[in-house]
Formats: sequence, structure tokens, C-alpha cells
Amino acid sequence: MTANSIADSFQSVRHFTVRLAQPLSAEDCMVQSMDDASPTRWHLAHTTWFFETFVLAQESDYQPFDPQFKFLFNSYYNTVGDQYPRQRRGMISRPGLEQIQNYRRHVDQQMIQRLQKPDFAAKHQRLIEVGIQHEQQHQELILTDIKHALSCNPTWPQYHALPLDRTADSAADGDSTRSKTPINIDEGVYEIGHDTNGFAFDNESPRHKVFLNQCAVDSVLVTCGEYLQFMNDGGYQQPQHWLSMGWSAVNQNGWQAPMYWIDVDDVPMFFTLAGLRPVDLDAPVAHVSFYEADAFARWAGKRLPTEFEWEIAAAQTTIDDDAPFVDWLLDRQLAIHPTRSPHGFCGSVWQWTASNYLGYPGYKPPAGAVGEYNGKFMCDQHVLRGGSVATHSSHIRPTYRNFFPASTRWQFAGIRLAE
Amino acid sequence: MTANSIADSFQSVRHFTVRLAQPLSAEDCMVQSMDDASPTRWHLAHTTWFFETFVLAQESDYQPFDPQFKFLFNSYYNTVGDQYPRQRRGMISRPGLEQIQNYRRHVDQQMIQRLQKPDFAAKHQRLIEVGIQHEQQHQELILTDIKHALSCNPTWPQYHALPLDRTADSAADGDSTRSKTPINIDEGVYEIGHDTNGFAFDNESPRHKVFLNQCAVDSVLVTCGEYLQFMNDGGYQQPQHWLSMGWSAVNQNGWQAPMYWIDVDDVPMFFTLAGLRPVDLDAPVAHVSFYEADAFARWAGKRLPTEFEWEIAAAQTTIDDDAPFVDWLLDRQLAIHPTRSPHGFCGSVWQWTASNYLGYPGYKPPAGAVGEYNGKFMCDQHVLRGGSVATHSSHIRPTYRNFFPASTRWQFAGIRLAE
Amino acid sequence: MTANSIADSFQSVRHFTVRLAQPLSAEDCMVQSMDDASPTRWHLAHTTWFFETFVLAQESDYQPFDPQFKFLFNSYYNTVGDQYPRQRRGMISRPGLEQIQNYRRHVDQQMIQRLQKPDFAAKHQRLIEVGIQHEQQHQELILTDIKHALSCNPTWPQYHALPLDRTADSAADGDSTRSKTPINIDEGVYEIGHDTNGFAFDNESPRHKVFLNQCAVDSVLVTCGEYLQFMNDGGYQQPQHWLSMGWSAVNQNGWQAPMYWIDVDDVPMFFTLAGLRPVDLDAPVAHVSFYEADAFARWAGKRLPTEFEWEIAAAQTTIDDDAPFVDWLLDRQLAIHPTRSPHGFCGSVWQWTASNYLGYPGYKPPAGAVGEYNGKFMCDQHVLRGGSVATHSSHIRPTYRNFFPASTRWQFAGIRLAE
Amino acid sequence: MTANSIADSFQSVRHFTVRLAQPLSAEDCMVQSMDDASPTRWHLAHTTWFFETFVLAQESDYQPFDPQFKFLFNSYYNTVGDQYPRQRRGMISRPGLEQIQNYRRHVDQQMIQRLQKPDFAAKHQRLIEVGIQHEQQHQELILTDIKHALSCNPTWPQYHALPLDRTADSAADGDSTRSKTPINIDEGVYEIGHDTNGFAFDNESPRHKVFLNQCAVDSVLVTCGEYLQFMNDGGYQQPQHWLSMGWSAVNQNGWQAPMYWIDVDDVPMFFTLAGLRPVDLDAPVAHVSFYEADAFARWAGKRLPTEFEWEIAAAQTTIDDDAPFVDWLLDRQLAIHPTRSPHGFCGSVWQWTASNYLGYPGYKPPAGAVGEYNGKFMCDQHVLRGGSVATHSSHIRPTYRNFFPASTRWQFAGIRLAE
Repeated sequence: MTANSIADSFQSVRHFTVRLAQPLSAEDCMVQSMDDASPTRWHLAHTTWFFETFVLAQESDYQPFDPQFKFLFNSYYNTVGDQYPRQRRGMISRPGLEQIQNYRRHVDQQMIQRLQKPDFAAKHQRLIEVGIQHEQQHQELILTDIKHALSCNPTWPQYHALPLDRTADSAADGDSTRSKTPINIDEGVYEIGHDTNGFAFDNESPRHKVFLNQCAVDSVLVTCGEYLQFMNDGGYQQPQHWLSMGWSAVNQNGWQAPMYWIDVDDVPMFFTLAGLRPVDLDAPVAHVSFYEADAFARWAGKRLPTEFEWEIAAAQTTIDDDAPFVDWLLDRQLAIHPTRSPHGFCGSVWQWTASNYLGYPGYKPPAGAVGEYNGKFMCDQHVLRGGSVATHSSHIRPTYRNFFPASTRWQFAGIRLAE
Repeated sequence: MTANSIADSFQSVRHFTVRLAQPLSAEDCMVQSMDDASPTRWHLAHTTWFFETFVLAQESDYQPFDPQFKFLFNSYYNTVGDQYPRQRRGMISRPGLEQIQNYRRHVDQQMIQRLQKPDFAAKHQRLIEVGIQHEQQHQELILTDIKHALSCNPTWPQYHALPLDRTADSAADGDSTRSKTPINIDEGVYEIGHDTNGFAFDNESPRHKVFLNQCAVDSVLVTCGEYLQFMNDGGYQQPQHWLSMGWSAVNQNGWQAPMYWIDVDDVPMFFTLAGLRPVDLDAPVAHVSFYEADAFARWAGKRLPTEFEWEIAAAQTTIDDDAPFVDWLLDRQLAIHPTRSPHGFCGSVWQWTASNYLGYPGYKPPAGAVGEYNGKFMCDQHVLRGGSVATHSSHIRPTYRNFFPASTRWQFAGIRLAE
Repeated sequence: MTANSIADSFQSVRHFTVRLAQPLSAEDCMVQSMDDASPTRWHLAHTTWFFETFVLAQESDYQPFDPQFKFLFNSYYNTVGDQYPRQRRGMISRPGLEQIQNYRRHVDQQMIQRLQKPDFAAKHQRLIEVGIQHEQQHQELILTDIKHALSCNPTWPQYHALPLDRTADSAADGDSTRSKTPINIDEGVYEIGHDTNGFAFDNESPRHKVFLNQCAVDSVLVTCGEYLQFMNDGGYQQPQHWLSMGWSAVNQNGWQAPMYWIDVDDVPMFFTLAGLRPVDLDAPVAHVSFYEADAFARWAGKRLPTEFEWEIAAAQTTIDDDAPFVDWLLDRQLAIHPTRSPHGFCGSVWQWTASNYLGYPGYKPPAGAVGEYNGKFMCDQHVLRGGSVATHSSHIRPTYRNFFPASTRWQFAGIRLAE
Repeated sequence: MTANSIADSFQSVRHFTVRLAQPLSAEDCMVQSMDDASPTRWHLAHTTWFFETFVLAQESDYQPFDPQFKFLFNSYYNTVGDQYPRQRRGMISRPGLEQIQNYRRHVDQQMIQRLQKPDFAAKHQRLIEVGIQHEQQHQELILTDIKHALSCNPTWPQYHALPLDRTADSAADGDSTRSKTPINIDEGVYEIGHDTNGFAFDNESPRHKVFLNQCAVDSVLVTCGEYLQFMNDGGYQQPQHWLSMGWSAVNQNGWQAPMYWIDVDDVPMFFTLAGLRPVDLDAPVAHVSFYEADAFARWAGKRLPTEFEWEIAAAQTTIDDDAPFVDWLLDRQLAIHPTRSPHGFCGSVWQWTASNYLGYPGYKPPAGAVGEYNGKFMCDQHVLRGGSVATHSSHIRPTYRNFFPASTRWQFAGIRLAE
């Protein structure tokens, strides 16, 4: 990547974050609706803190914008210092949103100015690229977190009154005649993980060999209609479909449907970023936990693919450039919601795999604070693959490993089956 | 009270609430830092809801400002309908602060317009008076709640940079030569509770007789300096001073000092609405729980007065008209903090009494929803008397019964002893 | 009390404890079914520890039975030293039951032998009397705790298969023609508390004056049948009857009936120490919390008496010597359950009063460890008066103050109304 | 397996369970010291329930010993029916221990009698074998659960006063000259899982191929002495060694050492089944969680082996027939504690692997209730391999997969490293 293209990427990603926050009031940006989610304002500040801490603060002539931000907006980097408790981020009203926007502008100016100098760009290239991808991860979290925040409000407010227009969507989607034939994988040794071209996170490496048995991965996603059959067949009432921990989660939380599904006068509705809408039976199901994905698969007589099977299957298909990722949707003034037909590997919903999130053979986290980025979370999390409508298209690659605990439901996560 | 004077009181109390919220940003007004506290914006809306629900909505020609507010801003009136869960008030970002201010203006206009008609004023006099006193209670909560909210921010932000000026204060206080002689009460039967002149809450009635033993109530409050002696004498380390539940609270919460006391480089500081300040040893101690007040009294070889002893003692002294209540302080541009000398019965800190909050003999809550105002809380709460710097002077009367659970510390509550 | 009569009382109470534990296996004696309850074996050991610690260990020539018991069987006396955590008493299997019985025998022998010497008796009289009353309190807890323990077993085991014989019972009860006229109390100043004759706990003193308004206290207890009317009238579904904390308790715990009431094929049954039995509609209702007692009173248009009203009313009636207290029942081989008709002030169920448990005017706990007996619990507990079928008759006196938190249900506690 | 050898195995395993419980009193057998552990008496009953439910109850002429046991002693088989809540097993005192022993005898007689008939043996062979292995799993749990139970008692009671004799132990161990050379594994495709000879659980199949990179697995276990170096080097104070969830566990639980390590006057002691003993620095470290095993490995610059690497390495070494498994130890009257030198693959401590517990490719749980045995727990658990001093030697095989959550410490679990 050249210094120029880094600067371009930097400006573009920084600008897109601001654009995502635009429909939100200062009050909206304050809400932390659960421990796992963060206020929008915190995302705005923390992504800025990342560049300030890992890039600018390494330069001897840089003055921090506000020394207290080092503590306030550190997420989990013990190497950098202590952190304000995560679950109390919604308590912090100062600095105000305007001050946080000043902070963003200050760091942006400093970065862009310094990126004129090729030395600076070269020295920090890796961490700036990580910072860009990091900010794209937070862009997705801004959307999933604010969706959860707004869903706590019984007036069902909208992030934006964009239309959920499936016609426009289907155009991009190709058409319904697209093949539903599963993708077959032959028994054998395959290479998994990122090769050296282009950016990838440390957890996508080393590229290594795995042995796969013969299998078939579905080319289509599970739809809301299919999921409703599972529900109507007593799926949430029958322990035999469920992992033991899943059955506990169902009973402790009273789960009866995917997150955000609400029966209004016996009509199944779901809460979207554009408010409450009727459930679209042809759309891919979203907002299910790993437990629900796994139970659905067992009910359907199939199983979830491993992340390795998924990656090899993805290599045999095409990832549409014009899939409805978040940037595509915003450009067309459409709602950010998985309304696409269930074709395509990426761009509708993340897909729970059967794999736990573990380091690849020979994996070592990088030295320094940024080594805390991925490695320390490799425990009791489950890999998701694919990318959702809330993911930026420039952030998508087939080796990308997303990961969440099995009970997670607030992400745009759905189901692809295998057998 | 005439219709005119009701209208005047109404306008004045409504205006004062807005004035209290003025130094706060939209973000500040969002914070709910614990279940017991509410966001400022909620106080602004709920006090408005009170007039809308209990007065305006009784008029057949009134159109509610927004029908969803009935649910959103109901605190605990089951008779009126369900309530949004109290501990999640900080999740609600819409309506925004501006919309809430519109709501206030709408209800104010409707009230003032209708108060022109003597019929309306007469018909609703009692509930408008309750609404006014209710709003004054919430004015105090706005201050105690935002103090707690700001205290969660490690940058120690200020509500307002008002000076903590004890000189100005002492002037009002009379002088330090004031008598410290305890107030003696002879054995006998006394009348307790409100007589029929002026407004009082239902819980201040019926006026009734109690038998008191001979006793003496201190004329001065316990100071920070005296409380520090208790601390230095191992008060928080020795179980013998404490109620069993108090000792549990000390150990479970790690209490070592009153709330908001923080050692900075071995100097005892406290967090005030004007930021972090050195502890003032001559000022009345504040932000102690009932447990701490009780333990201090036992350590000092005395006890807390009952609410009846307090009321009879108060009748033998003078309540200064110019005590530094919140309105007095704001007018003089002074900080809202108990810096007054410990003389005077009211206007520095609420005073924990030895009495549980129970209905007076013959007490019956009024019919209708407003009957839920006081009566249903008469269980395991402790009576405080006096009024604090955060109380409006027009809200003070010697029969007034404030009440909180024994572990409460975020109120301006301190200690008066008896024996 | 003479040394002889002290020795007699001591032996008799010690023997009765053993008799109460006789129907229980070593396994039964292990169960701690909730934090508030203790295993039978712990009661056997702790009551012994009381005499060892407060009497024998004061003698220079006494050797403790086992030095580790000082820690293991201390309940809450900080002055004596640390305590094994209360909620983990069910984890301790050694010493075994046999060893605990040896411990009892050892302390009994030491006590009886030393009680031959008048000096010893005189020196320790007060604490031996306290120890006797203390053990009688634990006798009652043995029964209420094992009832709770056995109720956790879905096979509904019996403490003892004694008959629930209401005929025998009613004989003792006098007859149903007994007057139901309420007891009237005139307005005036009354003396409350224990005079100096006979044993009383510190919390029954000082005797002092209170002013009472005119009132009437029911001469009969509320029956299961009356309580069922409240239930059938929607009592557990209507917030207007309940204190705010009571309504929360109803909803959080799913209360629909008194504790131990179970619908079996639509027939209301209750769990007794003799197993599962049909609810007896004429018997006094038992196992209700303060919240339920208070809600029932409000529904019935009456209220609970204060403990002072109760005590004055009790003075105007007769406490039957032959009421079915636990010793009476065991002698007649009858079940320990409130089957008596609702006449009589004592001996069926404890009666929740409207009074909080507070020290009487001038109350000071005694010096030393035994000062922790009562005083430190005077916070957020509610006074019960009367004595139940699980109370020993020799333990009953009209000034006795029992106390429990408002949510307590596992005691034999019922309802007497006033107005 | 012939009918005779099944009958022999059955009797032998049933007898060994009784032998393990012999040193325990009825009271000891009652204790449930945490949700994860069960009372000994429950293990005695549940293992019996297994044969009654899955074998005898399938025979039309069998009468259940007590119909209520079906519910009381079901662990987690939803297909069989509801279960008594796991965390309340310590509340059940009836049936008593003697009755449970009668239950065992009844089922044993029925089984042995029926096993005379070859038809019965053939029909039920698979489930009887599962029942035998199941009971051996519970034998180990009896020891680990009672160790935890006794450790709650501040008098440090002994399961049995057996000597911890390392001389006898080392004899069996061969000698310290044994090679410490790591076991090298070449890159390539390997077969993993059980072949068809002999019993194996469903989770050990299907045998399948995996690709392994070149690696080396240590031939010795990590010792207490080595672990103490990690502790002295600040291992528990430095976040960089720990997984994020591990670091939380350290801080929330205040972990400073392996479970059961206690400093007594600055000497490191550990609690064993023979009471409190000085830590043996040459013995393998035990009672560490996965988090601690993983952190130690990172500190040591190595890593944990995957379960596949472990299985291939084990195939290249010898599993000693005379390793000190629990049967070997009991026969020699030695304590059940990992005092062996760290040589040998099995028989000292289970070894945490880097692998999550997942189904092997093509894995399907068997039909019927026994399908709940393993499959439904394949989520967020970690595989341990090897077998400990508390495992019966006849229960050991290299493909055996033990599994526990990452925070588990009460098992005899230790550390083998790889790189």
C-alpha cells in the first residue's frame, strides 16, 4: 500500500464512521443498553484513541488532545494501562459529543498532515492498517449496539426511516433462479488461512493444512420462513434439539424466537433499524445465537459447517462485489437489514460455524500492546464467517474470522447448514 | 390559597426546575448512575407527567401531548397503569431533551391558561399543591442524582463552578457564638403531626399524641471534624459500634468514610457539585447512611433522636428564614454544599432519626392513584427530618417526614445526636 | 430462682432439645435448606457452645471439649471471635452427630456438677437463664428449619407421623362458643414492657409509658378459610392491597398462597411436619410474611395492631395454660401444627404486629459479648407477638418480642387484626 | 465380552464404589459443597439408577425399587423425564444412606441374577458396558467431590489417614533416570479416535484423519516446583500471560495458587484426602484450571498440546500398567494424591489440552436417552487426556476424552507442555 492510498483509506473510513453516527442525537449516542454494547460516543472516541495511542503517541513531538482520554477510552489493553470499567461506559457524559468530535478532528488532522511524509507512513503502516480495520469493526458495532439500544425504547424509534426495499435488493442479488445446489468438498488436505497478499489480522495466520472429510455446504442461507417452521414444530420446547447450555439459555431467558421478533396482535414482527416491520419470510434469519443455529441444524437433520469447510466452500463460489453491505445500502438510501435473498456467501448475515475460535498452528500474537487485539480472546468463543449487511464491503475477505460467545444474539448472525 | 397564588406558585416551581437543569448538557441529563437515581431528563418529564395525569387529563377537553408518555414517565402508580422499568430509565434517548422541554411548555401553558378559571383552580387545588411539593422533591433529587452521576466520571466534572464560600455562608448563619446548649424535653404527652394550616402531605397526619420520656436533643449537628475522629478511632473497623446489617454493609461495600470522601495523596477530599474540594472540618458531615449515623452515635455515647423528639425540639427553636437552602444559594451564586456551621435545625443536611417510617395512628392514604404517593412505602424505611442545602426553602416545615432505606448515602444526610 | 431450680430448668430444657431431634436421622440433621435456616446438628452444637462459652469457659479450671468448636459453632458473636460463614453450615460433616451428642453430654455433666455449688449458680445465674431461653428459641428453630428442609424433598417426608387431631385439640381449646368480641382499648397512657418479676430478655425493658389511641384488637386469629377468600378475591393479583416492597416480593417470588400451600389436583394441601395434608379451613392461617399479613388486613378493611396494642390487649385476656404449645403436643403425641381454633392469644401462631423492632426508651444492651444478643438486630425487623405451636409453654410471656424481616415465611406466623 | 466377563466386571465395579464410600460417615455422604459437585450418597444412588433405568426397567417383569427414585436420581436425561434440581442435591436426606445401600443391593441382585441368562446379557451388553464405565466416572467424582466437601471444613478432616509414601510410589514409577526427551511428531496425516476393539464412548469415534504439523510433546509433567517458580515470578499478577477470561477469573476469585494450596506460617501446604500436607515440589502440579495451565505454558514459552498431538504422542510411549491409579493405591493402602514423579503419560493427573470438546467428523449421538450422555455437552468445554490417581486403571485408554469448563479446579488436573 502506498502512503497515498493509506491516507485515502484512512480518510474514507474516518468519514464513514461520522456518517453512520449522523442520524443519532447526542442522547442516542449516550445509551449503553447492556454490558456487551457500548455507547456510540464511546465508539467515536475509542477508534480515535486507537490511532492516537498506537500511532501518534509514538511520535516524540505529539501532544495528546486530553491526557485523561488515555484511561477513559482504552477498551482492554492492559499493556497501555488501566481502563474505565466497560459496563459503566454509559455513565460518562463528559467529554460531550461535540468535544469528542473535536477529538476526532484533531487526530484526523494530525494523521493526515503526518501521512504526507513517506517516513511516517512507512513506519506506522501496519498499525494504521490495523486501525482502519479496527474502525470498520466498530462501525458494525455502532449499528448493532444502537439497534439494541433503540429496541429498549417501547416507542420503537428508528435509526433512520430508510425503506426496506426488496426490489432494489433483488436486482443486486441476481435472481431467484440462482442455483441452490450445495457446494461439495472432497476428502483431502486443504490450505486454510490468509496468504501474504493484502491486509489480514494476525488470527488469520499462519496459513496451514487441514484434513477435511468429504462434505457438502449449502449454497443458500436459512430463511425466516424455514426458521418459523422450526418454531411452529415446537423447536423451542423440545430439549432434544439443544446443547445442554443452549437449553439452559432458552429456559433462563425465555427465548421463543430470534432476538427482536415480537408478536403484535399475533402477527410476527421484527424490530429493525427502520422501526418495527413484519417478518420477511424469504429473508435470511438473523439475530440467532450459536445455540439456536445449532439446534435448528439438528432439527433439520444437518449440522453447521466448520470454519475450514466454510472457507473452502467460499473459495469455490463468488463473493458478489455488489452485495448489500452497509456502504452499498447507505449509498442507495436503503435500510440496513438482511432483506436480501439467501443466495450469496457474504453480505447478509454472519454465519455461525461449528468451530471454536482458537489460534492456528504456530500462531503467536504480535509483540506489544497490539498483541492483545485477538489472541487473549481465544477461549469459549465461536467463529462466524461471511460478513453482514452491517459490514463495510472493503472489510470483507474469505479468511476473516469473526467470533462471539455462543449466547450472542444482537449481531446480524444467521445460519448456513452443511452435511 | 387563592387561584392567583396557586398559579404563582406553580409557575415559580416550574421555572426553578428548569433553572436547576440549565448547567447540564443533553448528555448529562441522560445518565442514570444507579437504580435509585434517575436521569435529569426523566425528572423533567415525570414532574410534568404528574400535572398532566392527575390534573389536566381529568378535564374532558384535554389532549395528551403524547399518549406514550403515560407509560414512559409514570414512576410507580399502578393505578394509572404499567411503568417502564425504573432501573432502565437511562436507556431511553427519545423523546430527546428538546422534546421534553416542549412537553413542559405545553403542560405549563395548559395549566396557566386553565388556572385563570376559578372553577378549575378550586376543583384541582389539592392535587396542584401536591404536584408543586412533588416537583420540589424532584428538584432535590435532580441535584443528588446528578451529583452521583458526575461522581462516576474520573475527571470529576462540575455541575457548576460556583465558589464554596463559607464567609458568605457564616454571615447568614448568625455567628459561632450561638448557643450549643442541648434542647431539653420534659417527660409528658405531646402532640405530633401537622395541624390544618397550610399544605402538608398525608403522611404528616393525623396530628396525634405521643408520650415522650425526658431527653435532650443536640442543638448542633455533627461536623466532619468530629466524624473524622470516629474514623481515626477505628470506627469502621470495630463491629461493636454497628448494627448487624450496618456491619455487613461496611464489609460488603468496603465503606471507610462517608460517600464522596476520597483520599488524594493522603489529603481527605470530597466530591462536591463544584468538583473535588478539601474536606471542611467545621462543616456538618453529610452523605452518611443511617448505619453510619447510628454507629457514630453509639461510639459517641449518645443516640439518634426519634422523629417525635426531633419535632418537639424543633418547635423550641427557630428555623432561620435565611438558611442556605437551594434557592438562597442559587440567588447568591454559591455552591450547593453543606458548608454552613452546624447551628440551625434545617437547611444544611437531613438528619437521620431513630424512627421507622410508619403511618401515624389513624392514617389512611387518600383514595385514588395519589394514595400510592406515600403509604405504600411505609416499610423498612427510616425517617429523616430537617431539610438540606438541596431543599427549596418554601418546601420546609417542621412536620415534614423524609424517608429512605438505611443504606442510603447519596442524599445530603447527616447526624444530630440526642441522649 | 434457687440453684436447684436453675439446675432443674437446665436439665429439662437440655433434655427437651434432644427429644425434639430424636425422630431425625444423621442425614436429616445435616440439611441447611436456605441461608436463614441451620442444620439440626448445628442447633444441637451451638446451644451447647453457648453454655460452654458464656458460663464454663469463664471458670479457670474448665478445659474446652474441642478448641475448634469455638469458631465452628459461634453464631454471630464478634466479641467472641470470628465465625464460620452462616450460609455454609450445611457443609460441615465433622464432628459427626454422635460427637456432637458427646459434646452435649460433656457440657451437661460439667454444668450439673458445678451447679451443685451455690457460688457457681449465683455467679452465672443470669447467663444460665439466658442460655435456657436461648435454647428454647433454638428448639423452635429446630422445628421450623427441619420443616423447611423436609419440604425441599419431593417425597414429602414426615418429621413424625403424629396425627393432626383437631378433636383432642378443640377439647383443650375450650369451645367454639367462646367469645369473638374484640378487645377494646381506651385512649390513654399505658405501661409497656417487662416488670422485674421473672426472667425477661433485655429487649423487653425498660418498662415505659406509651400513649395509645382508642382501638379494638380482634380476639380471634385469621383462619385459613378467611385467607382463602382473600386469595379467591384476587388478593395476590391486585397491587392496591400491598406495600410496595410486598408487591415486589409477590412478583419476584411468584407467591400465590402462604408458604407450604400446594395445589394437588386442584385440592389445596399444605405441607406439615406430618407430611402433606388437606388445608384445614378453620385453623389459623400460618406461614405468611409480614407483607401478606399487612395486605390481608388492608383487604379486610382493618390493620395490624402495634406491639403495644397487642400487649395491652393480651393483658385483658387469659393466656391458656393448656394451649397446644410444643411440649403439650409432644406429651399427647400430636402433630406440631396450628390446628387449634383461632381463639386464644398465644400458642397457635406468632402474630405480625405493625411495629418495627426498636429499643425501648432508655434501652442499653448489657456489657460484654451477650450484648450482641438482641440490640444489634434492631433494624428493619418486625415484631411478632404471641408464641406458636412450636414454642415451649415455659417460654411464653406477654412481653416477649419475637422479630423477623418482613419477607419471612418459614416461621409459624399468622395474623391478628385490629382497627 | 462374554456374559460371564460382563457379570464379573459389573460386580467388581459395583463393589469398588462401595469400598470408596466406606471411610465416609452418613453425614459426610450428605455434603454438596458447590453446584458442580454431588453428595457421595447421590453418586451411590445415581449409578444404581443408571442400571435400573437403562437396563432393568426395559424388562417387562421388573418392579422398580421405589418409583420416586426415577425423578430423584436422574441427573440430566430429559428423555427419561424431569430431574430434581442439581444444585439442591444436598437438601435430600431421605432416602437415608442405608436405604440407598438397600437400593444398590436390590439392583445388584437383579442384575446378577438376570446376567445368568445369555439372552439378557446379549440384549443389554452395550448399555451395561456404558453403565460400568459411567460408574467408574462417578468413582472418580466421589473422590474429587468429597475432597472439595472436606476442604470446606476448617478442621481439615481426612478422607482416610493413608500415608503419602513417595518411596513406594517411586518404585512403581521406575526411576528418575527415565528419559525427559520430548516426543517428536512429524508433519503428516494421522488417524485419531477409537478403533473397534474394546469399549469406547461414542465421543471417541468415528476414527478419522487429522493433519498435524511437526511438533514436540513433553514426556514429563509440570511439577509443583516449576509451578512455584511461575508464582514467584509474578505469574498471578501479570495480565500478559493470561487469556482475557482467565485474567478475569484470577481477579474475581482472588486466585494466587492452585486450588487447595494454603500458606500456613509461610510454608506452602496443600489439602489432600489425607489432610493438610506440605507441598511436594517434585510431584506433578494438580488442581489447576485450564486458564492456569494455559498461562503457565505461555510464561514458560511453550503451549498446551492439542488433544490430537497428545493422542499421537501417547501412542509412541508406554502406559504403565502399574501406574498409581486409584485401585493400585487402595490395594497398597496409600493415599490418593498425585505424588508420583512426573514421568508417564497417565495415572498422575489429567492434562488440559488446547482442544475444545467437539464431535469428531461424522459424529452422531446414539438414539434414545443414552444419546444425551456426551453429545449435548459439546460446547465451551475443554478436553483433558490421561487419567489421574483418582481414575480406575481399567478405565484408562489413550483415546479417552475427559472434558470440563475452563475454570474447573477441583479435578486432579495438571499440565503437560508442547511446542
